[in-house]
Amino acid sequence: MTRDEIMALVRTVPDFPDAGILFRDITTLLAHPQGFSACIAQMAQAVSPRTTAIAGIEARGFILGAALAAHLHLGFIPLRKAGKLPVPVIGADYTLEYGQARIEIDPTLLTAGEHVLLVDDLIATGGTAIAAAGLLRAAGAVCEAALFVIDLPDLGGMDRLAEQGVAGKALLEFSGH
Amino acid sequence: MTRDEIMALVRTVPDFPDAGILFRDITTLLAHPQGFSACIAQMAQAVSPRTTAIAGIEARGFILGAALAAHLHLGFIPLRKAGKLPVPVIGADYTLEYGQARIEIDPTLLTAGEHVLLVDDLIATGGTAIAAAGLLRAAGAVCEAALFVIDLPDLGGMDRLAEQGVAGKALLEFSGH
Repeated sequence: MTRDEIMALVRTVPDFPDAGILFRDITTLLAHPQGFSACIAQMAQAVSPRTTAIAGIEARGFILGAALAAHLHLGFIPLRKAGKLPVPVIGADYTLEYGQARIEIDPTLLTAGEHVLLVDDLIATGGTAIAAAGLLRAAGAVCEAALFVIDLPDLGGMDRLAEQGVAGKALLEFSGH
Repeated sequence: MTRDEIMALVRTVPDFPDAGILFRDITTLLAHPQGFSACIAQMAQAVSPRTTAIAGIEARGFILGAALAAHLHLGFIPLRKAGKLPVPVIGADYTLEYGQARIEIDPTLLTAGEHVLLVDDLIATGGTAIAAAGLLRAAGAVCEAALFVIDLPDLGGMDRLAEQGVAGKALLEFSGH
């Protein structure tokens, strides 16, 4: 399946969650067997062989990150919303496009110095990904790479992520918000 | 990896989320590369060849369901918490062991009559799984099977699920709550 064919499986929903936003909805891609398989296989090609674990951001990042970890036979580390993990955590507060949020990690799931790939469904302004990369580093991991299904290049998130020393890649790009 | 070896990778956290609860935490299993791979491979052996899609319940069910869908080259359908899907949904309210909750589905992601396997990390009293199976059926799917990493058989969820015509299986069983 070509990248254009995968891209055609993403649904665009206008005015969600707010008026004027074009929401790029991957559920139609995930539900398509060949589309989902091709998405994971093509994302896997962008993963460095140095990667020892994949961290996914709750909740859509769990879907992509866990599928990719299973495909590559790597471990999966959940970056969870506040209050979900049953053990002592470290956390990061950050600003979303649509408000405030917090993610948390159990640092004991990581080995010091291991190379963790950050995975999420979409990068917009990059706020979530930068917070997540910082949290992985605070937990002792090396986080030099991030992988997304969708980049919205007009919002500049990849550049901001690069300024933090994280090389981001995305399978698909959509212009506009 | 044997089932006992997989079971040894599950962490038990006492008194979470409430006093007296033994929380069975799979994050330690997910983070273990061989453990996570073995978990997905062994769950896959329990999947009927009639299955055309896998539905995972937000959020931990996303991790297992998506990994299993990728492993089997099936589509993945997210059963989301209220207000997350950007399109018209149908929803189900239900009672959790620790409170009230609601899950929602976009019924247009399903083909009428397709066989959908329900996946979650754990079955306790079965309330979430029964609501999810009912929602899949309301969306037009056939839901006759559910698959979990962990069953807490003392809480009776599998039996309640069977009363609804859903055959549930779990990779691991833990006695007590």
